[in-house]
Amino acid sequence: MTEHSLWRFSRALHRALSERRPEDLADLLDEDVDWAIYGPIDMFPFLGARRGKAAVLDVVGQIADNFQVRKFERETVMLGVDSAASMMRYSLTAVDSNKPISLRIAHFVRFRAGRLLSMRVLLDSFDLVEQTLGRAIHLPKMVAS
Amino acid sequence: MTEHSLWRFSRALHRALSERRPEDLADLLDEDVDWAIYGPIDMFPFLGARRGKAAVLDVVGQIADNFQVRKFERETVMLGVDSAASMMRYSLTAVDSNKPISLRIAHFVRFRAGRLLSMRVLLDSFDLVEQTLGRAIHLPKMVAS
Repeated sequence: MTEHSLWRFSRALHRALSERRPEDLADLLDEDVDWAIYGPIDMFPFLGARRGKAAVLDVVGQIADNFQVRKFERETVMLGVDSAASMMRYSLTAVDSNKPISLRIAHFVRFRAGRLLSMRVLLDSFDLVEQTLGRAIHLPKMVAS
Repeated sequence: MTEHSLWRFSRALHRALSERRPEDLADLLDEDVDWAIYGPIDMFPFLGARRGKAAVLDVVGQIADNFQVRKFERETVMLGVDSAASMMRYSLTAVDSNKPISLRIAHFVRFRAGRLLSMRVLLDSFDLVEQTLGRAIHLPKMVAS
């Protein structure tokens, strides 16, 4: 039984991030890869949607420039034939400020011929903003009467 | 082949929300259900973690009091034997302000004997905050040099 594409991709992605060598991911990306990490792109220009291998390699490089992954833990994983979904917890360091950031993310991925074809990531973006700012944003309480 | 627990639970949850009858969900919740929707609980007190059937029924009632589901679309779904994960898009109305809110969420669920045992939900919480406020929050741009 061959290894699921998720594991190979995950190892390569984390190595590319830690060594700041996005180009090492090239062989694991479909030419037409569809990539999206939902979140506030005004603050984090490396979030948002990207299409195609070159754009994804570029954005992986930007993420590596901004965050160091200290550790990650996969809380839940579901594997399909050519797809996977996980809920993960990351401990990051913001490179700019040296601040520790703790982040939960959910990702849904699809592969074609062992290469990443599609990735969708959701994260608790408000929490990420507050941790990056290093302060709470005051919010009104919303409760319908 | 019997229907996956996800579909029965999803129908019941959406009906309970639209009819504001959380108690109708009681039979589909494990006594010890573990529930979490990650997001800013200062603004949305019905987000966060809940444990046990009574606490979950209570919080479903609070969600129903605050949001109406206009429609939802399941973009991705993965089914395991007693588990499931989906990425979904919701069109909601905030009951208090009558504002339309469009929200992408990811959920990971587990069932035991057909009842919900665990649910973890991630959403683009910054986007939810801005849509609820009805204005943008100014953010500095974070780019490491």
